[in-house]
Amino acid sequence: MNSPLKKHFEEIVPEISDKDFQYILQHFTHIKRKKHQFIVQADEFVHNDHWVVKGCLKAYFLDDEGKEHILQFAMENWWITDYNAFQNNVRSTIFITCIEDSEVLCLSLENYEKLCREFHFIEHFFAMKSKKGYIALQKRILSLLKNSAQERYEQLLEQYPQLFQRVPKKMIAAYLGSPGKR
Amino acid sequence: MNSPLKKHFEEIVPEISDKDFQYILQHFTHIKRKKHQFIVQADEFVHNDHWVVKGCLKAYFLDDEGKEHILQFAMENWWITDYNAFQNNVRSTIFITCIEDSEVLCLSLENYEKLCREFHFIEHFFAMKSKKGYIALQKRILSLLKNSAQERYEQLLEQYPQLFQRVPKKMIAAYLGSPGKR
Repeated sequence: MNSPLKKHFEEIVPEISDKDFQYILQHFTHIKRKKHQFIVQADEFVHNDHWVVKGCLKAYFLDDEGKEHILQFAMENWWITDYNAFQNNVRSTIFITCIEDSEVLCLSLENYEKLCREFHFIEHFFAMKSKKGYIALQKRILSLLKNSAQERYEQLLEQYPQLFQRVPKKMIAAYLGSPGKR
Repeated sequence: MNSPLKKHFEEIVPEISDKDFQYILQHFTHIKRKKHQFIVQADEFVHNDHWVVKGCLKAYFLDDEGKEHILQFAMENWWITDYNAFQNNVRSTIFITCIEDSEVLCLSLENYEKLCREFHFIEHFFAMKSKKGYIALQKRILSLLKNSAQERYEQLLEQYPQLFQRVPKKMIAAYLGSPGKR
């Protein structure tokens, strides 16, 4: 079994068997979206978490003046959704759109919860993912509080060099926030 | 069984039995610290996650100019540690000190992982906690990107009114960040 999603699971739960993976994979649906198309829209309910097979996406908030504030990028092997809307069954406050033509695997909350109940290792996989995500967001908050935009730019470049090949500079700026030291 | 920690678990995993809880509780150690004392220090390894039985604590970063940037507060029923240092076995970049005399229950990484392996519902409990934490941090990042300090102050007051009774205004400001709209 040579699926990229299986490899992705195996990074945390190497014990996953081909048989279990085949069963798990049936709970995902595959969609393709063109550049500029949405997978999540503000004011709508969010039915899925999304794992990026191919492409590049951004999650952003539009303020009253129409300015874009970017919460997250996602490339191959990353997960992206409005987690508040998805988990708590409320309407989204953000948009998620494709920066490139993209393919994602969608997992509904119902199937997510079902798989977590059925497989302890899937619960463990998503627990580890949430924990890593939590740690990354804590680092970003510290960086927003203490670093200048220039320092944040350099950190991001070091951490995700490929992002700078694929994402326009304007969007990187909308991710980093205002230039002043906070 | 009328333990506050058991009640705290039951909010997410109501099926926890007295017998299992007694066993789980043996994996925690109880410590008391006076106001101003540390439970985590920068440049040291972090051996425990901490659940607050009583008191109030702050997690903060000190920048090169000695300015405090507050990452998190914690009161009764909250969890607090340097999750990056704790999970990845690296030295801490932050301090965690008591704003009031405090009592916390400490859970080592070894015991944390052991309990998660032994009880699927404990893995589920911590997975839910991480997820809720992740969502809260996403909201805070959006707020740091798009709101003024005044708006962030009002949001925090609405969300945690008791914090304003227990924490000096200077610390609230160090949590909220700089006054300008970002």
